Amino acid sequence: MSLVVVGSVALDSVETPFGAAEDALGGTASYFTTAASLFTRVQVVGVVGDDFPPEYMAYLQSRDADLSGVATLPGTSFRWKARFDYNLSAAQTLDTQLGVFAGFRPELPPSYRDAEFVFLGNIDPDLQLTVLEQLRRPRFVLLDTMDFWIGGKREQLGKVVRRVDGVRINEGEIRQYTGTFNLRAAARKVMEEGPRVVIVTRGEYGALLFSQDDLFVAPAYLLEEVRDPTGAGDTFAGGLMGFLAREGKVDRLTLRRAMLYGAVLSSFTVEDFSLGRLRAVTLADVAQRYDELVRTTHFDEAALMPAGKE
Amino acid sequence: MSLVVVGSVALDSVETPFGAAEDALGGTASYFTTAASLFTRVQVVGVVGDDFPPEYMAYLQSRDADLSGVATLPGTSFRWKARFDYNLSAAQTLDTQLGVFAGFRPELPPSYRDAEFVFLGNIDPDLQLTVLEQLRRPRFVLLDTMDFWIGGKREQLGKVVRRVDGVRINEGEIRQYTGTFNLRAAARKVMEEGPRVVIVTRGEYGALLFSQDDLFVAPAYLLEEVRDPTGAGDTFAGGLMGFLAREGKVDRLTLRRAMLYGAVLSSFTVEDFSLGRLRAVTLADVAQRYDELVRTTHFDEAALMPAGKE
Repeated sequence: MSLVVVGSVALDSVETPFGAAEDALGGTASYFTTAASLFTRVQVVGVVGDDFPPEYMAYLQSRDADLSGVATLPGTSFRWKARFDYNLSAAQTLDTQLGVFAGFRPELPPSYRDAEFVFLGNIDPDLQLTVLEQLRRPRFVLLDTMDFWIGGKREQLGKVVRRVDGVRINEGEIRQYTGTFNLRAAARKVMEEGPRVVIVTRGEYGALLFSQDDLFVAPAYLLEEVRDPTGAGDTFAGGLMGFLAREGKVDRLTLRRAMLYGAVLSSFTVEDFSLGRLRAVTLADVAQRYDELVRTTHFDEAALMPAGKE
Repeated sequence: MSLVVVGSVALDSVETPFGAAEDALGGTASYFTTAASLFTRVQVVGVVGDDFPPEYMAYLQSRDADLSGVATLPGTSFRWKARFDYNLSAAQTLDTQLGVFAGFRPELPPSYRDAEFVFLGNIDPDLQLTVLEQLRRPRFVLLDTMDFWIGGKREQLGKVVRRVDGVRINEGEIRQYTGTFNLRAAARKVMEEGPRVVIVTRGEYGALLFSQDDLFVAPAYLLEEVRDPTGAGDTFAGGLMGFLAREGKVDRLTLRRAMLYGAVLSSFTVEDFSLGRLRAVTLADVAQRYDELVRTTHFDEAALMPAGKE
């Protein structure tokens, strides 16, 4: 089914103890689209400057993405520069150049407006509201946000929260948003505002799925090597939403499986800089790690069989 | 089967944002015994001073523990005073009075020496070695340690590691011990020294089980309320070793189940100060949380059935 992502398309310069990349393809929409396109066609809403490398645009085209919602405006593309230290858990932003992204006004082409699955990437809540107003009857809208908006635009963000079906938020952010330390209690508070699904991401520790009738603990895929965590969250969202859109339903079991696809896809992203690893991933690669992930959490006899579970 | 624990029996004074306790029953052996005694009889090796409250000794007796290995010496009992802040992840030790524990020389009564399952609580590696020398033919010895010994007695600790079957260690400690950041690689390094099982505990994020032929991710039971994390690790070990000893085997499936029993038992400990909650727990309580834990990680149709899984 139709899937729309609204978010940044960026040029990232990232340095970690394991290497560096400069002006590499990044941004929410790039990671999301690469992951989700393994499952379904993605319609992208974003903006780039006229300096945006044509090969990056060609790459996104090659993922069979609908880029008619990506505007190219005179000016420079969004650039983000950051450094990670050894624990890789939080980026230290060195520089942010918004460029044309500063004037981003998400405009959905008519063919996007019937979208059933929508990911509102981490942008200004005011803009997220304008996207909601352009959608006819979405079935599942997942919201992403960050501490910056929770602190600075709490009221507008609240309006978005009340109108979406799901929220993806990290541990620190949900505590900040709800003023509640306990995650179970915090998730309930968010659900009381409207969303029926709350996904709390915990970096290398995996993610939690809360809903009215479910609690699911999704582990992270345990890697031997992590080079750059940039884009892990957006990739997780792409894997999750892509799978939901392909299945065309959002029931309890499908959501649980979607969480694992999110975890699996993001495990590829962090193995290399930018989309270095993720872009080469096949569905067979995904199925293999999915199967491994199942076997590291299940413990009944059946789950210990070597393969063929999923 | 026979199960021996070697470790502290202490009087803890702990303060958290959610309350405080003074001179409450604590120490490795107390938590371990309370948890493990739900599954099997525990033989305790420890020492207390002549100031040790008789009601605490009577409590341990009431767990059907064999206390013939607990010496009472003239002097004061081990006292630990600590404070936790809101995130509850690390204790700030305010005071440690070793008392008679300073002269602790673990002496196993003859009836202990055939023990098949043994937990070497977190004490001086030199003392852990003397315990190993008193055992005839243990089947599964689990070692606990901490940063203090890794930093100060690395060589002696290495001797213990090479002679045990399993190691329980937290994320920071295994990185310190191996000089390796990646947990998978670090666990492999420890296994190369001898142990066939490495359990990496991650506090509120659960625990990982590494062995030659397995990787298992055990989530923590997600609580609504946590009041005092003291004793969680020792309780985890008690649940795990108690279950292994009851089953009398250490195969892959049994280890996985034991990890979940460890997680379940420790979830009760942190709900109250000292043994306030844990001591009242029944096997039925344990079975209920075990079942819930299964349902929060499994996601196949069968696991979503409401009950009766375990």
